[in-house]
Amino acid sequence: MEVNVFGSDFMQVAMIQDKIVPAEQLEPVYLDRGIYFGDGVYEVLRSYNGKIFALEEHLQRFVHSLAAIEITRVDIDQIRSRIRMAFDAAHISNAKIYFHITRGSAPRDHNWDADLKPNFFLTVTELADDTEAKTKGIVVSTHPDWRWKRCDIKSLNLLPNVLAHADAAGKGCAEAILVDEADLITEGAGSAFFAISAQALQTAPLTANILPSITRKFAIEAGKNIGLEIVEKSLTPQQASCADELFIAVTTKDIVPVVEFDGELIGDGKPGKYTKLLGREFRSFTV
Amino acid sequence: MEVNVFGSDFMQVAMIQDKIVPAEQLEPVYLDRGIYFGDGVYEVLRSYNGKIFALEEHLQRFVHSLAAIEITRVDIDQIRSRIRMAFDAAHISNAKIYFHITRGSAPRDHNWDADLKPNFFLTVTELADDTEAKTKGIVVSTHPDWRWKRCDIKSLNLLPNVLAHADAAGKGCAEAILVDEADLITEGAGSAFFAISAQALQTAPLTANILPSITRKFAIEAGKNIGLEIVEKSLTPQQASCADELFIAVTTKDIVPVVEFDGELIGDGKPGKYTKLLGREFRSFTV
Repeated sequence: MEVNVFGSDFMQVAMIQDKIVPAEQLEPVYLDRGIYFGDGVYEVLRSYNGKIFALEEHLQRFVHSLAAIEITRVDIDQIRSRIRMAFDAAHISNAKIYFHITRGSAPRDHNWDADLKPNFFLTVTELADDTEAKTKGIVVSTHPDWRWKRCDIKSLNLLPNVLAHADAAGKGCAEAILVDEADLITEGAGSAFFAISAQALQTAPLTANILPSITRKFAIEAGKNIGLEIVEKSLTPQQASCADELFIAVTTKDIVPVVEFDGELIGDGKPGKYTKLLGREFRSFTV
Repeated sequence: MEVNVFGSDFMQVAMIQDKIVPAEQLEPVYLDRGIYFGDGVYEVLRSYNGKIFALEEHLQRFVHSLAAIEITRVDIDQIRSRIRMAFDAAHISNAKIYFHITRGSAPRDHNWDADLKPNFFLTVTELADDTEAKTKGIVVSTHPDWRWKRCDIKSLNLLPNVLAHADAAGKGCAEAILVDEADLITEGAGSAFFAISAQALQTAPLTANILPSITRKFAIEAGKNIGLEIVEKSLTPQQASCADELFIAVTTKDIVPVVEFDGELIGDGKPGKYTKLLGREFRSFTV
């Protein structure tokens, strides 16, 4: 550990589970501002057949997130190298790459020192097979959107997403679709949300309440390519349940059909034809 | 480390800063859901002259927070013992005691296993002298309330508080006062907020947007004791800047006079007489 991380104001005693730990033996990771405040931002990438998809788009969004919460002095070229290095070391063809940067480790204080060194953490995992979700579609339920007002920042403050997910899981659903106080769908707890009706592809516009999803961007591009009209306008749950087709878009699984929405079957309860076309078009981007 | 924390779905490669770490060598703290999601709750206590203040009130709120995010299987008697043990070990007369419990350590997934073991972490720190803030008062500025919709839960999702604090610090202010979309003050980024006008003590009512502050409760009790009328009604920033007196209430410093609000002097720019009386009354609770 680096002793100077604690400055002059370090705690006298720490305790981990039931063990007292003198301050000078405490690893800095226990003082990560990521855990104290969720004071960090993250990205999730994936590879298809050994090739990382949309790395530059994800890095560009990461730069935006870092700037939005004033984490400075991050060398994005270094981050790119680290991602490539870890991905190469993992030898996984279809991998999920998660990484975050937090503002650094310091005794708990809302304010931070300008010379604090950010913490970087990354994992590479093999993606589970998603054939069933893609061929049968998934069931979703709605939950109030309890998130903060800057969901355009991909931050580590994800407790509302976790709670919404848990509520959905309790109902046997694979994703929670978040609904704001104006009864409009913002997005999924971990995905972008789309409806298709009368050959129009509809999703919420990008505001401070919506993550600028990379998969959303490619889904819209795929929609244009297959001749759908693009409508960036929020839907009510009522409108969603009456749509011809629904799907979610998420980095790790790209396009996933939604066949049931709050207990209502969508179409004939099977993945829709445009959703299937979109999935095929999307995957043509990844080769 | 406990290997089984990773289950069967562990990552193949992790990276900390620029070092690749095999999954089996990774400490569970790096997979704390506290850092991935802010999936935990916390408390801050203090002691006055060797005596912990309002321990039971804080434990009761902690139980509420744990239940609200469905962290179960926490033995609150054990937590109480740990707090006392660490406090006794630290030998600090005027101590700040911080502790949190997160849902546990596991590979990143919104969903969690029912048998996940919560992580407990605590620090005891000596409180800095706050004579200057109390005798001269502090300067505050407003910031939009960007927090989530369940601020009644004392969770680790504190990035909006951190950003509001940073904004205030940049203006030379000691605290950010949060203002919602209806132009009403909710509370401070790390404190409860009060106004006194015409012998009435006013603060926002307890809703899902307000932390049920322990110090707020004792400040209201102190207000009653000194004969102030209690008004639980939100203020606009305009109303606050015209108040006779303002103060914030926070565990670590109890009652702190506010002498300037968004650049406007409050009263004659010195701590108000009722605020001083309240501070004295409050401290009578702590002996």
